[in-house]
Amino acid sequence: MSGDLDQATMDRLFAKARTYSKFTKAPVSDDLLRQAWDLARMGPTSVNCQPMRVVFVRSSAAKERLKPALAPGNLDKTMAAPVTAIIAHDMEFYEQLPKLFPHADARAWFVGNEAMIQSTAFRNGTLQGAYFILALRAIGLDCGPMSGFDNAKLDEAFFKGTTLRSNFLVNIGHGDAAGLYPRGPRLDFDEACRVE
Amino acid sequence: MSGDLDQATMDRLFAKARTYSKFTKAPVSDDLLRQAWDLARMGPTSVNCQPMRVVFVRSSAAKERLKPALAPGNLDKTMAAPVTAIIAHDMEFYEQLPKLFPHADARAWFVGNEAMIQSTAFRNGTLQGAYFILALRAIGLDCGPMSGFDNAKLDEAFFKGTTLRSNFLVNIGHGDAAGLYPRGPRLDFDEACRVE
Repeated sequence: MSGDLDQATMDRLFAKARTYSKFTKAPVSDDLLRQAWDLARMGPTSVNCQPMRVVFVRSSAAKERLKPALAPGNLDKTMAAPVTAIIAHDMEFYEQLPKLFPHADARAWFVGNEAMIQSTAFRNGTLQGAYFILALRAIGLDCGPMSGFDNAKLDEAFFKGTTLRSNFLVNIGHGDAAGLYPRGPRLDFDEACRVE
Repeated sequence: MSGDLDQATMDRLFAKARTYSKFTKAPVSDDLLRQAWDLARMGPTSVNCQPMRVVFVRSSAAKERLKPALAPGNLDKTMAAPVTAIIAHDMEFYEQLPKLFPHADARAWFVGNEAMIQSTAFRNGTLQGAYFILALRAIGLDCGPMSGFDNAKLDEAFFKGTTLRSNFLVNIGHGDAAGLYPRGPRLDFDEACRVE
């Protein structure tokens, strides 16, 4: 692959995209969520393990179940968002490996190795969460990712008796710029990187 | 923001991008690495904490220091790649918060809370790693991310006596399609998601 993307695209995905706290009343269809999924799922994961699982919280009843787990600062904006995605991962993701990575018995590399299961699920589920954030932006949606909530409480409400564990939340909609603060500063290359 | 990106862009970032094991001899300039950084750093992190730190391993001497930490299957391709990025995170990322998030004393939320430091550094450093993978693709580079290496050995070789810890590696260059396997299957929306 060669050549670079145009500036408008760079701006939409990175430079001018913002974390929104407020969204317009415009609904977010299931079809748009599926479009974002179909892009995000193509991003790379270790041995193609794809541990991310997502619950899209849309109904009032489901929002009420989410409510007690939220940090106070995230409560009102999450209740008002058109959809809130619970980005989770399946701690038994390796059961899918015979299908997802048929070249080797990759399942055997994980079974019984709790530390490797934990780090692989968390790392790769988070990578997929980031692909999903950018995929939402790519199809014209805006989002507000958050980690300010009680994971154990949320897991009890949504994933009890399953092998799914919550990672972070993403409010999704069409952003209302009226709710934006000035953009926070970013670290320069020379503050965060070195070339050896 | 509204409207969606054109198909060619979607393809470049997601649908047709591949994980490369082989790269052409074309060099990767520091300027390109800086361009990718300048895009990736704009992605969202919790309280704007930006814990990711990157070492770009380019010289033969630095590649030799990396070598003993690599899993056998990742050895030759990494030695041959134009550049290998060590995606790491700073376990004292919170010391930057007075500058990066001046609205509140966010530093105080982390100091002494080892579990929250660990999960925040790992989660947000990984999100930033994913933004970086897509930023590399956005500027026309290809990459091969890997977690098959000994983190402790790598940290000893590159981060001894510091608060930096390795997360994963990314080989970077111009991909050689001759090294590609058929693409692995992906989970469908209905296999991995639900709407409530």
